[in-house]
Amino acid sequence: MKSKIFIFDVDGVMTTGQFLYSAQGKEYKVFGPHDNDGIKMIKEFLPILFVTADKRGLPISRKRIVDDMSEELTVVREGERLDFIEREYGLSNVFYMGDGYHDAPILNQCFYGIAPADARIEARNAADYVTPSRAGEGAVLDACLHVIQNFFEAH
Amino acid sequence: MKSKIFIFDVDGVMTTGQFLYSAQGKEYKVFGPHDNDGIKMIKEFLPILFVTADKRGLPISRKRIVDDMSEELTVVREGERLDFIEREYGLSNVFYMGDGYHDAPILNQCFYGIAPADARIEARNAADYVTPSRAGEGAVLDACLHVIQNFFEAH
Amino acid sequence: MKSKIFIFDVDGVMTTGQFLYSAQGKEYKVFGPHDNDGIKMIKEFLPILFVTADKRGLPISRKRIVDDMSEELTVVREGERLDFIEREYGLSNVFYMGDGYHDAPILNQCFYGIAPADARIEARNAADYVTPSRAGEGAVLDACLHVIQNFFEAH
Amino acid sequence: MKSKIFIFDVDGVMTTGQFLYSAQGKEYKVFGPHDNDGIKMIKEFLPILFVTADKRGLPISRKRIVDDMSEELTVVREGERLDFIEREYGLSNVFYMGDGYHDAPILNQCFYGIAPADARIEARNAADYVTPSRAGEGAVLDACLHVIQNFFEAH
Repeated sequence: MKSKIFIFDVDGVMTTGQFLYSAQGKEYKVFGPHDNDGIKMIKEFLPILFVTADKRGLPISRKRIVDDMSEELTVVREGERLDFIEREYGLSNVFYMGDGYHDAPILNQCFYGIAPADARIEARNAADYVTPSRAGEGAVLDACLHVIQNFFEAH
Repeated sequence: MKSKIFIFDVDGVMTTGQFLYSAQGKEYKVFGPHDNDGIKMIKEFLPILFVTADKRGLPISRKRIVDDMSEELTVVREGERLDFIEREYGLSNVFYMGDGYHDAPILNQCFYGIAPADARIEARNAADYVTPSRAGEGAVLDACLHVIQNFFEAH
Repeated sequence: MKSKIFIFDVDGVMTTGQFLYSAQGKEYKVFGPHDNDGIKMIKEFLPILFVTADKRGLPISRKRIVDDMSEELTVVREGERLDFIEREYGLSNVFYMGDGYHDAPILNQCFYGIAPADARIEARNAADYVTPSRAGEGAVLDACLHVIQNFFEAH
Repeated sequence: MKSKIFIFDVDGVMTTGQFLYSAQGKEYKVFGPHDNDGIKMIKEFLPILFVTADKRGLPISRKRIVDDMSEELTVVREGERLDFIEREYGLSNVFYMGDGYHDAPILNQCFYGIAPADARIEARNAADYVTPSRAGEGAVLDACLHVIQNFFEAH
């Protein structure tokens, strides 16, 4: 599995996808249990990267992913994400986990695509694997265990 | 589809309908993923308008809809909404998406009525289409895709 | 229906029952859509009262129920609630809506007991009617419509 | 039942497992209804202890468990929890309630293991009893009633 990478979308994958708005704007995102356990496991097998299209909520995502989990987070607009992944890593090298309408072509063309149980139908239909758990309820741990069991432990 | 418009209720359509109260009052509303993707798509086919009856939570709704999404938001009390729509746009010109008890007559009399999966039973019964997703979980993207596919792409 | 009253528990009936804790303590409760519509309807038929056992979260409940909805809210400890209702109103005069383990005997002995769909099993078993909606998702509107249809409109 | 103890994990057992992040970090956890009723009941039969692995959210858990509920809370990292329980109490003396991937061996080896309805599959498979309620929706009251009914009332 040389030169493979696992790229995770943040919103709707590491979070429920929902955000709490006050009169001051987007203030909170809802992160769930279990997923950090999975991230620690998968890192023994694959490099990982988080991507986000949410500029307005970036300080929240950065706090969680970069400051508290010490992982790398790159901002890539949804319309540019397919090209970004092809250019930087090559789609055929990428395990990708995403939940949105615009993630469907990436899930379709990457090496192995995974969607949470509550992802958009377009993403679920394009994915190679749909996790039993919903986003923010352990979907990322599901994904990590699935990849380890199917691509590493058997080899 | 000349002179048609798509009017969206905010609470329970763009949000889960729930609000977080502190001792200082109504402070947060929960907006979901995917819906802004739908709003961007439908705007290529139809003008849109958001309406709300929630005066107390108006600064929150305005922050999201007006400041962050750059859309128009009009305050109309629930009891006056049917008359407002008839007077300003003509019910027969309106695609309407709402979730509440008092939205049922509008859903019934407008050109095409849509309710989220978790709308009040009265709203769901009056709607022409009930989305597979719940409010705050992609119901507005469902609605936009449905309208585009059924009223525009086939024409 | 002279001298009847409708008494509503607050937490788990008007709210989801959940509360958000920060390092400063209990800060938010989650109120849902639709219920205020029901409260406005039922008041044309019956006097109403809200009761709560949550002293720590009282400023939050008071803000919503008293300040914003202009309704009456009485603090009664759960262990004293049955006696309080019997003494002040007579159990046989009371429509009661509650969700907790300790609400079961009240639901059992009052004139007509109602529990939300997601109430404790003990409360649901003791109730005369279980609403189709969960607390914080319209259970109180369900209850109000049910009481109006079954006790007033037919008379 | 001499020298037995009931040990409860906090996150995903007393809470939904989810946490709200702002740009300032982990700020809120979601505690549910009913559970404090169960804790009061079980304490008449068994000493109890809460354990948590969440150092970053410790001030939140401490506020709820220690300050507001007046219970004991010990920080034990997940990887050390099995050893900690064996050393301090002996696994064969412990009723344990947990929800995570790393709780599975403890649930397996303790005297009696309980998992919430929405625990990780690994925890549910290792538990002696899975509660009908989800975490943050009464799972701890379910667990307490179950233990009282099966281990104390019949004796």
